[in-house]
Amino acid sequence: MTRSELVRQIFAKKSFLCVGLDTDSNRLPECLAGEGEPEFQFNKAIIDATLEHCVAYKLNTAFYEAGGTRGWMGLKKTIDYIPDSHFVILDAKRGDIGNTAHQYALMAFEDLQSDAITVAPYMGRDSVDPFIAYTDRWTILLALTSNPSCIDFEMKKLANGNFLFEEVLIQAQTWAGVDQLMFVVGATRSAQLRHIRSLAPQSFFLVPGVGAQGGNLEDVIRSCWIEDCGILVNSSRSIIYSSDGSDFAIAAGRVAASLAERMQAAF
Amino acid sequence: MTRSELVRQIFAKKSFLCVGLDTDSNRLPECLAGEGEPEFQFNKAIIDATLEHCVAYKLNTAFYEAGGTRGWMGLKKTIDYIPDSHFVILDAKRGDIGNTAHQYALMAFEDLQSDAITVAPYMGRDSVDPFIAYTDRWTILLALTSNPSCIDFEMKKLANGNFLFEEVLIQAQTWAGVDQLMFVVGATRSAQLRHIRSLAPQSFFLVPGVGAQGGNLEDVIRSCWIEDCGILVNSSRSIIYSSDGSDFAIAAGRVAASLAERMQAAF
Repeated sequence: MTRSELVRQIFAKKSFLCVGLDTDSNRLPECLAGEGEPEFQFNKAIIDATLEHCVAYKLNTAFYEAGGTRGWMGLKKTIDYIPDSHFVILDAKRGDIGNTAHQYALMAFEDLQSDAITVAPYMGRDSVDPFIAYTDRWTILLALTSNPSCIDFEMKKLANGNFLFEEVLIQAQTWAGVDQLMFVVGATRSAQLRHIRSLAPQSFFLVPGVGAQGGNLEDVIRSCWIEDCGILVNSSRSIIYSSDGSDFAIAAGRVAASLAERMQAAF
Repeated sequence: MTRSELVRQIFAKKSFLCVGLDTDSNRLPECLAGEGEPEFQFNKAIIDATLEHCVAYKLNTAFYEAGGTRGWMGLKKTIDYIPDSHFVILDAKRGDIGNTAHQYALMAFEDLQSDAITVAPYMGRDSVDPFIAYTDRWTILLALTSNPSCIDFEMKKLANGNFLFEEVLIQAQTWAGVDQLMFVVGATRSAQLRHIRSLAPQSFFLVPGVGAQGGNLEDVIRSCWIEDCGILVNSSRSIIYSSDGSDFAIAAGRVAASLAERMQAAF
């Protein structure tokens, strides 16, 4: 999906919500216990209930890989089920030497046919290039993440005066344009958001951390909104686990709708 | 496998060779074309031929994930086939927020039953802790990798005078002991090896980059050898693709034997 197509979806819906399908097989509602593919049935119901309120789905590979071969089948089946109108992010945070990173690109873009993959920057440019080589897909590079330990390395000050995450933002923008490179910027770092936007004024940001992790949606809008939106706000647990009863999908739809409603003020 | 068990294997064989099963389905010998599970048949033959010369196998998840569900089955089947005498490393370079990293730990240690997993440090301690929580398994943290772009961030100088990879080495040693934490140190950075050993004098190093990437085995021994060895040298492509004919396994065994022979001088 191109940037203009994504932006068209966002403005048509007045929503930049991404629903995170972090589907933990140990947290499924009891009513799905008898199902043959409970994780897929869960995802299917969540997708059906949230589709009109969001523009993107993010699938974190960890939750599927933990289920082994069956989990991987569920991942593929879920991505296949998501309609083309929605942007699909494989949240994989991969990073490896060139010939290996290319294999991950095959996985994300050829086998799973996702629109985007998240990538870790530690190993540098040649570990990111094989993803960028897919010019019709998106590479979403970790910049400043939402977890407390982002202070350990991401927020370390370099000798040149930049924090490491700033150096990543600055260097990576020379690797690819704003039509195929996004950045992960955690909503929990609200004090940094406006500054991060100034460092990457035209880039789309994938913003996790709203919801269970405590980030504030209005802070994100105030600090990061640009002319064509430029933000995808992801929420996972606070949407998909809002009820553990048989109304789980209805409840998820309600939380997604409420987030989307709060987003309307930005348009 | 504990450190003392690993060291016993190493000294019994006078080898610290790790064979990297980076099995690319597009590079399999033609003679396997008719097989039902060509990747597994390839791995099985390579394992049979190299078993006596090495102490460890490293499986890079990228090559298996590129094959989708079938690839994942091949990964599991290969790990199941490796005998308990050999140390199994899942080269996954994962890194994510705590509850997600825990899912990767489940994948590596429960579902796949590997001895060790490689982990990326960018997101900091809470992204590594869920792996360290498995005190009977190994976490292998990326420090200085073997690819040219390690200069982009890993070799950036921090304001405190350390390079980023040095900061990772120093901080991470406060997170876990030398009986469950190793570091990835690329053989291609020979000028740095002795210094890195001084920063982590008791840690095991997983050293990729010997072979196709140009690193030198004798440099690694000279710079990194400690009393109980402290090194696993990995070679992937130069072993497993040393012939593309029907003698591929014999050829792989020959290259592995020759590397192991060069290792004997260290004992």
